[in-house]
Amino acid sequence: MTTSRQIQLKGYPDGAPTPDLFQEATVELPAPQDGQALVETLYMSVDPYMRGRMNPHVKSYIPPFQLNEPLDGGAVCRVLESKTPELSEGDIVVGMGGAGWRSHAIITPKGFSKIDPDLVPLPAYLGVLGMPGLTAWAGLTQIIKPKEGETLYVSGAAGAVGSLVCQLGKHYGMTVLGSAGSQEKLDWLVREAGVDHAFNYKEHDARSLTKAIAEVAPKGVDGYFENVGGMQLEALLNVIAFGGRIAACGMIANYNAKELPPGPSSIINIIPRGVLMQGFIVSNYAHLQDDFIKEVAPLVASGKIKHEETIYDGLEKAPEAFLGLFEGANTGKAVVKVGA
Amino acid sequence: MTTSRQIQLKGYPDGAPTPDLFQEATVELPAPQDGQALVETLYMSVDPYMRGRMNPHVKSYIPPFQLNEPLDGGAVCRVLESKTPELSEGDIVVGMGGAGWRSHAIITPKGFSKIDPDLVPLPAYLGVLGMPGLTAWAGLTQIIKPKEGETLYVSGAAGAVGSLVCQLGKHYGMTVLGSAGSQEKLDWLVREAGVDHAFNYKEHDARSLTKAIAEVAPKGVDGYFENVGGMQLEALLNVIAFGGRIAACGMIANYNAKELPPGPSSIINIIPRGVLMQGFIVSNYAHLQDDFIKEVAPLVASGKIKHEETIYDGLEKAPEAFLGLFEGANTGKAVVKVGA
Repeated sequence: MTTSRQIQLKGYPDGAPTPDLFQEATVELPAPQDGQALVETLYMSVDPYMRGRMNPHVKSYIPPFQLNEPLDGGAVCRVLESKTPELSEGDIVVGMGGAGWRSHAIITPKGFSKIDPDLVPLPAYLGVLGMPGLTAWAGLTQIIKPKEGETLYVSGAAGAVGSLVCQLGKHYGMTVLGSAGSQEKLDWLVREAGVDHAFNYKEHDARSLTKAIAEVAPKGVDGYFENVGGMQLEALLNVIAFGGRIAACGMIANYNAKELPPGPSSIINIIPRGVLMQGFIVSNYAHLQDDFIKEVAPLVASGKIKHEETIYDGLEKAPEAFLGLFEGANTGKAVVKVGA
Repeated sequence: MTTSRQIQLKGYPDGAPTPDLFQEATVELPAPQDGQALVETLYMSVDPYMRGRMNPHVKSYIPPFQLNEPLDGGAVCRVLESKTPELSEGDIVVGMGGAGWRSHAIITPKGFSKIDPDLVPLPAYLGVLGMPGLTAWAGLTQIIKPKEGETLYVSGAAGAVGSLVCQLGKHYGMTVLGSAGSQEKLDWLVREAGVDHAFNYKEHDARSLTKAIAEVAPKGVDGYFENVGGMQLEALLNVIAFGGRIAACGMIANYNAKELPPGPSSIINIIPRGVLMQGFIVSNYAHLQDDFIKEVAPLVASGKIKHEETIYDGLEKAPEAFLGLFEGANTGKAVVKVGA
């Protein structure tokens, strides 16, 4: 018998989630059966999309979390015992199949992939080379379809997804504008990620952001990678160029709203300007995982693509790490170190 | 010398356009030069998009109308005198190259096409087989891409564009829902256009329309052909299905707003449901004109596709016909008979 510590969801949030919605529990795991493996979780991911799974009635590709059950998400694990030929003791795997938010789990090979622990540090497999990385790469290459010389705007630019979008945009020869909420993040964007103009969204409303973007991008914004929503979407629909493309990946500004705020009045501009707006979640592009790794892993391994992680130490820190996502507490990917 | 009566724009509207913004004038036309032809306008079109050209600062593919100059738009004309080998006296042509809102014009062959006056009545070349027809067909086939068995919702369903979208949707095997603003139009939609469920938008707000659509389309709406905007967009983003497609063709509810109303708060749904929203204007699809005529003209000629026109008699009625677009005054295409 193996004891697994886990973080469970105790209640659904009404508005912003709070620490009291989480509870710790321990469960005894049975021995793995044929086709299964026992793993210990080394690192787990906290991501904004998890807030969506805390709405019991939301209509989404992913079902809501159940109360008094462990939460789940991406995790990097070590195989301790295997009863399946696809995994061996000592393998390091990453996946979303039931090993997140807990110390140990019984898994099946489906939904996990073996990874090379020597290529990049393990937390990067939850960030730049993980689900956020695929999200960034797929939204940019499959929806925005960058052309050299075009202008790209990225909201949430210093986040796990946004920071890769910015750097890939530069890699493809675009002028890149990005927004974040602190001077430290703006500095990182310009100095490390190569962003051409960084905006502090906290200093703007839709009108002033419209003006500020128009000053540096008088021909308009060709591609908008949307992580935030709210007044930034309002502003970007004012400055979007003819034939502009919007990859709608997240609207974190709205995730905790008890009542949804009004949408962008400027949405009417999509008609005369022939704008495409495509909402997506990463699983829509799961079939492109290999193409993503093939293109991006060498850029990361060579240091051409920078990545940052904010590491929280200990499973018990997972709620704090998650809540920090909505307060702009992290630069780059927020990851929780669970095991040794 | 030929005298041309014309309707000019006297001032830009602030909000809803009013009759006093239009003025009649007569001008003497010079004789056609080499490469030109003199035409008399038989029928002219009034369309909602013209309101957009009355905003002097709007950023669009089409420039705004100039003050104290004639307005322009689609027109069916007879060639009176030709100095170009591409046109002959007596030819009937249709196009948007400077013959709308006036009785006579000097044109060039570019932007006009010869038409067969025996195939369908001439006003149909401004409606079901004209620009609104191409708009309907292109938005449906190129953006929504119907699949048999899917559900389609059409706002402004009894209008020039919407009535064709509805019928093509049925032709492609879809369940079709449509909205309009009078019992007479709802009856026409169900009895003539074959619409499965017709909604009177005047009897609904976003919440009740959401509920009404969900009752008849419990699996959601796969395709939304958007002509109206406002609360209908709010409702449709509530009931849009996974992988739904929205062809954003018009938002007439907003055209006369002095200040743009808030957008749809439900826009966040495009992310978890992977929804595509594509704004477009007909000229984006001008290159598909031949494909459109090839597919739709036989359906119209055979009577399989029904079409209605509301005909206003006399050039001087053009402002009234145009203003009626914003009051739901017309079933089908609004056309002004200008010449004999």
